[in-house]
Amino acid sequence: MTLLFTDTEVADRLDAPTAVEAMREALLAAYAGRLVAPPRASAPLRGGRVVTTAGQLDDEWYGFRSYDTFGHAEAEQLVVLHDGRSGRIRAIAVGEEIGSRRTGAIGGVAVDALARPDAATVGVLGAGRQAWTQLWATAAVRPLREVAVYCRTPSVRDAFAARVEAELGISATAVSSARAAVRERDVVLVATDSVTPVLDPADLAPGAHVNVVGFKQQGRAEFGPDLLDRAGVLVTDSPAQAMDYQPPMLAALAPYVDRLHHLGAVLAGAVPGRTGADQVTLFCLVGLAGTEVLLLDRLARVAARRP
Amino acid sequence: MTLLFTDTEVADRLDAPTAVEAMREALLAAYAGRLVAPPRASAPLRGGRVVTTAGQLDDEWYGFRSYDTFGHAEAEQLVVLHDGRSGRIRAIAVGEEIGSRRTGAIGGVAVDALARPDAATVGVLGAGRQAWTQLWATAAVRPLREVAVYCRTPSVRDAFAARVEAELGISATAVSSARAAVRERDVVLVATDSVTPVLDPADLAPGAHVNVVGFKQQGRAEFGPDLLDRAGVLVTDSPAQAMDYQPPMLAALAPYVDRLHHLGAVLAGAVPGRTGADQVTLFCLVGLAGTEVLLLDRLARVAARRP
Repeated sequence: MTLLFTDTEVADRLDAPTAVEAMREALLAAYAGRLVAPPRASAPLRGGRVVTTAGQLDDEWYGFRSYDTFGHAEAEQLVVLHDGRSGRIRAIAVGEEIGSRRTGAIGGVAVDALARPDAATVGVLGAGRQAWTQLWATAAVRPLREVAVYCRTPSVRDAFAARVEAELGISATAVSSARAAVRERDVVLVATDSVTPVLDPADLAPGAHVNVVGFKQQGRAEFGPDLLDRAGVLVTDSPAQAMDYQPPMLAALAPYVDRLHHLGAVLAGAVPGRTGADQVTLFCLVGLAGTEVLLLDRLARVAARRP
Repeated sequence: MTLLFTDTEVADRLDAPTAVEAMREALLAAYAGRLVAPPRASAPLRGGRVVTTAGQLDDEWYGFRSYDTFGHAEAEQLVVLHDGRSGRIRAIAVGEEIGSRRTGAIGGVAVDALARPDAATVGVLGAGRQAWTQLWATAAVRPLREVAVYCRTPSVRDAFAARVEAELGISATAVSSARAAVRERDVVLVATDSVTPVLDPADLAPGAHVNVVGFKQQGRAEFGPDLLDRAGVLVTDSPAQAMDYQPPMLAALAPYVDRLHHLGAVLAGAVPGRTGADQVTLFCLVGLAGTEVLLLDRLARVAARRP
């Protein structure tokens, strides 16, 4: 019997440590060539496209995520998990939660791998769903003492800070500038919908780790090349996907591409991550394909234990 | 809230007249250019592919079917229906029933449009799921008096005949040759997995209508070119899809392609169908894309009325 998960059920059942651990495994499997994730497939309709991103882990499972580009406010995504041996559909998730939690959890793996071990303060730029799940996962990998959040709309950043205190139990402040959010923080999470830079890398403290989640392409990015210049370590969750953007991703251009590493390689110890306490590390999150299906696999396992 | 339909629920709720009427609307909408059905999109994995066929009807709905090519015995398909205005996922069907019922129902529309009005006897070649749904839909468009079924395995054809009597209430006989099934029947339904011809067109009665459902390509077909020669009228549910096969479909080759018509055009009265009681008519079923989603739309409407 196929399990169907709504956003509410995903939110109830999928905790951050489980999600981060699943994404750690996914990144290692991707680096080892065990997680197969072909380029997205697209079907053009009138006014938009239906897009699927497929994934497969050995003979354990295969499946896909689907979404569309019509831009409907209530558009729902789908994640489908097939058993790799029987072909049966084990589980389906409808909505946004699996997708944003896996993105958050990939960010959490990066923070865990690249931020200083004693990192305890976080600056957040953006206050939407992506900013939330980045922080949700970061709180699972470091004991956080303080969060500062900035976005353009005061009521939205106030609500975000209140939610941090209520749901994560961390002291949080809404601040009135990006600089105030970024300055002196150990970890900076950038998850906006801006197509122009929202932070000045000069504001970053020595030793800061930064996740960038939003637009990161040439001519359309929430940060500038100066951030790439400032960073001593450049990492992404999928170099292959990073190379595939049109227009190109800033970090996939020379001279940056030569030092852009696979987060899975860092986790596997094949390349160094942070090599000094004063180094700025930067993680460019592209959303490794196939990982929504892996997360649904873990969720289905949790549900099987605790029905 | 998304509705989830299993095979059992589809079988319980979707009757043949509803399915045939839905496919009649789909064929007319396709002919009028209102049903959008782009080429299938495919994502290669190890050992198989995940394939999606999308569809859209005006701004009413869009969605897709997904299936894979791993060849697992228990592989399940998926059909997904989005509301065209909100983007929400209204319904999902897991399994095989929607797909085989829509194929059956397309065949039923063809029988209704092309068989003689007084057709009452049916010969069936093949005794699998596709053969069953062809007959299921045919029984909804003509009052049938007699069914003869042939397939290679005696126990399977016996069981099929018994099921016809039990579920459709039509007198049915399992016969021991294709000729015995085909000879003197008003309607012949060919739905085998054979890659070589299973019938001799010389056995067809004048005025017979034939649906071919299985392989129909050059070098791999359940019938030969002689069947196309024998037929005075050639019709398919999607000329565009018929042109797209590799190796090519027999009916998409010269000289047949010039007289291969869209079933939607016949329904709309734009081209003639049968023009004489002694004419043999042939319907080459390719499975118009997008129609599974339309059928799920109808099923979701039925479920809304009768929860």
